[in-house]
This record gives sequence, C-alpha cells and structure tokens, in this order.
Amino acid sequence: MRTILCRLSYDGTDFAGYQRQRNDRTVQGVVEAALEALHGHAVAVVAAGRTDSGVHATGQYISFESDRDSIAIAQFPAAVNSYLPPDVSVCDARAVSTGFNARFDARARHYRYHLVVSPVRLPLDRKYAWRIPEMVNLARLNADAAACVGTHDFTTFAARREGQGSMVRTVQYAHATAAGAQIEFAIGADGFLWRMVRSIVGTLVERERRRLRGDVVTDTMRELIEQRERSAAGTTAPPWGLVLHDVDYDR
Amino acid sequence: MRTILCRLSYDGTDFAGYQRQRNDRTVQGVVEAALEALHGHAVAVVAAGRTDSGVHATGQYISFESDRDSIAIAQFPAAVNSYLPPDVSVCDARAVSTGFNARFDARARHYRYHLVVSPVRLPLDRKYAWRIPEMVNLARLNADAAACVGTHDFTTFAARREGQGSMVRTVQYAHATAAGAQIEFAIGADGFLWRMVRSIVGTLVERERRRLRGDVVTDTMRELIEQRERSAAGTTAPPWGLVLHDVDYDR
Repeated sequence: MRTILCRLSYDGTDFAGYQRQRNDRTVQGVVEAALEALHGHAVAVVAAGRTDSGVHATGQYISFESDRDSIAIAQFPAAVNSYLPPDVSVCDARAVSTGFNARFDARARHYRYHLVVSPVRLPLDRKYAWRIPEMVNLARLNADAAACVGTHDFTTFAARREGQGSMVRTVQYAHATAAGAQIEFAIGADGFLWRMVRSIVGTLVERERRRLRGDVVTDTMRELIEQRERSAAGTTAPPWGLVLHDVDYDR
Repeated sequence: MRTILCRLSYDGTDFAGYQRQRNDRTVQGVVEAALEALHGHAVAVVAAGRTDSGVHATGQYISFESDRDSIAIAQFPAAVNSYLPPDVSVCDARAVSTGFNARFDARARHYRYHLVVSPVRLPLDRKYAWRIPEMVNLARLNADAAACVGTHDFTTFAARREGQGSMVRTVQYAHATAAGAQIEFAIGADGFLWRMVRSIVGTLVERERRRLRGDVVTDTMRELIEQRERSAAGTTAPPWGLVLHDVDYDR
C-alpha cells in the first residue's frame, strides 16, 4: 500500500468543475472512475483545490491510497491516463508518506489568469482567456495588485460559501505581464477563498476600465480590502481565463 | 458596391477544413451563410488559402463584393460576427479596389506550427500543438530548416492534388524557436503546396528523432528537396499544430 501524489492537468471547458456531482461530468468523477478501473475498487481522492466549472489546471494535485504496488511509480501516470479522457491527464506521480493529504499539506497555491486585448472576438482564445477590448495601463494595474500582497482578511474578494472559517490569507505575489495582446496575471498565496482570484482580477480590470473612461477612482485597493464587504469588489472575471498553475508541498 | 477584404480567425477543431463541402461543416460554408444572412442574397467569397480539417487561422483573408454600402467599413466585422458561431470571427475589414482577389493578390503567406515537448498528454495543448516526447536539438533542426529557404521545386514536400501547376515556391524564412516546452516553427513563402508545411515539419522532427535514437541521418535536407520524390519526405505533422498566421498584400 502506497500513498500517491499526482499532478493533474485538465481543460476545464467540458467539466462542471472539479468537485464530484451526482449528474454532471466533473474532474473528480472522471479521475475516480479511472482509478477505480485501474484498482478494481473505489479509490477516494483528495485534491489541493476545487476549481469551478470552466476553470483549467496545469498543476492540480490529488492524493490517494493505492494497493497497486506492482505498478512502478514512473509508470503510474501512463497507467491512469489509459483510463482517462483526452481533456484530463496525470502528468506526474510520486510516492509520499502515509497520511499525506494533497489539500492539508499544500503550502502554497499558484494561479494564472489570462486576458487578451482585442476589440473583436478571437476564436482561438475564447475558452482560455478573458477578452477585454482595450489595453490597460499595466503599471497602474500592478500598483493596485500590489495592495493584495501580504496577510489580509479577503472577505471583499470572496464569494461567500457555507461554513467558511477564517477569511485571512497571505498573498505572496500578484502581478500582471503582457506579451503582445496577451496578459498573464500571476498570483500565489497560502490559500485562496472561493472565487478570490477571479474577484481580484475582475476588480483590477474594472478599475482600469473606469480610469480609461475618465472616471476618478477614489478608493484604493487597500481601502477596498479593509472594507471587508463583498459589495466593495467589482465584477468577477469569467472562469475560462483561470488556470490552477501549481501547488507547493514540502519535499 | 464595394470589394471588401476581411481577415478571419478560426479554431479549426470543429471544421472539416476551409473549403465548402456538401455535408460537412466548413469555414467557407459558415462564413458564406453569415454573409448571405447579412446581405439578403448569396455572396461568393475567395480565400487566400484553403486550410485542412483541424488547421487553425489567425490571419486567413477572404474577399467578396458587397452591396451593403450603408454599413461603415469599421462596423463590418461586428456586423458579420453577429451571424457567425464562436469558433470563427471576422477580425478586420477594409475596402479594396474592384477586382481585388484574396487568393491571386496575395504576395506572401505566413504559417506557424506549434509543438509541445512532454512525455505525457497535455489536455490544454491537445487541439493546438503537436506533442513530442523529447526536446529536439533546435540548432540542428534550424540548420536543416534553412535548406528550405529560397526558390525550390518542393515536390518532395507536397501531397499531390489534381491539376496542380508549378511545384516551385520561394520560401522566405523557416525557423523554430522554443519558450520552455513550447516550440514554434515559423515559415513564410510566396505560396505553399498542399500539406507542404506539415510535411516539412514532420520531416524535420523525424530527422531529429532519428538522431536522438542514435541513427546516422545521411541525406541532407537539400538532397531530399532535390530528389523531388514524395517518398523522400518523412511523416506529415498532424493538422492541429498548424495556424495560417497571416497573408501579405500590397497596400
């Protein structure tokens, strides 16, 4: 018996999010079905984070107990992938200590949010980037984003969910870079509240849009955070621009 | 009455290629249907190039005659796009001189071919890049690719089609660059034979694979071209890595 940690990549387009649901196609449902086929019995998985419908991943992680000790760990990804559909893949597998938990042992989570600047629809980006009509002032947007870095109560940027505990999270970095018309917003934290990345990105972009329209944006991002009011946030950016990029674990 | 030149972008995944077919969904079929809906009568379009099933475009061009003179040219893309599905879009429109022809007036065509290096499946790249398991030696591949530059008979790299005229084309540039695991092969020419880009890319990659396996690759790329034999070429790279990137016209 081994505890195994797998890195997953998926195209979120055709999934109703990560978390298993009774009637919808989910990443967890598809992965647990593949592991059941491989093991001959049900295998319960724990994931680093739950991604919403349409959100992608290049670095989601799952942990589970496996009694298929005959499969060398280097062969494990191919063994699971032979049971998985093309839009989800195990990229890597390693044996970890008994009791290791992909959710609770995660030290940091990294997300990327992709935007593309175009006045017209771009078919090749439509499922993978949020299209905005005009280029934003990246230096100004990054000055706003910097206010998120550090330890704060992020209630302003959380879509409330039942039974949520502390709203305090520590953001390590939050900044955007552009390459031509493509903008990548990178953010890392010890953890994220529900829809926190999309809420931050939507607010940052909305502030820039207001400035481009000539509006005076009076409240600083710091002040929005300090209000701890959902109503202080702007729009929530759409799910298809978001990618769970990676998760850090102690080695 | 105006002659209009439009730049098109499309995700080729769900199209049976550019060219209209009786029973399959094609880019031409969808675009002509949109133009017919906008004009109230059939509009025949001429395209810069015919792309195969699964091939994408960010810079395909079409020309046609339009009697909808009431639509300002700047509004034309949005007007057509309101009749188009999400996987194809008019990105730009301009009025050109009467008799302008998107195919015959094209001075150069630019393609990009995307590869991704990964030993395992990558769901987010599966429709947009050819996955190869190992990194190739780019300097060596580019030395091979340089043999394509210039004016040559490219019979070796053409899938023969009925009624084809001269097999001579002038390639302006052909080289690959890598960013992490992503490789982009860029090639421009006055024109391309059928499947010429995919045939060149497949051959270049196959030569590198043979070298990585320790095989001695004796024939030079120049010698393969000079053989003017389809059998001298290697595999044809899959369609989903290919993008019609842009077409040059005289201004």
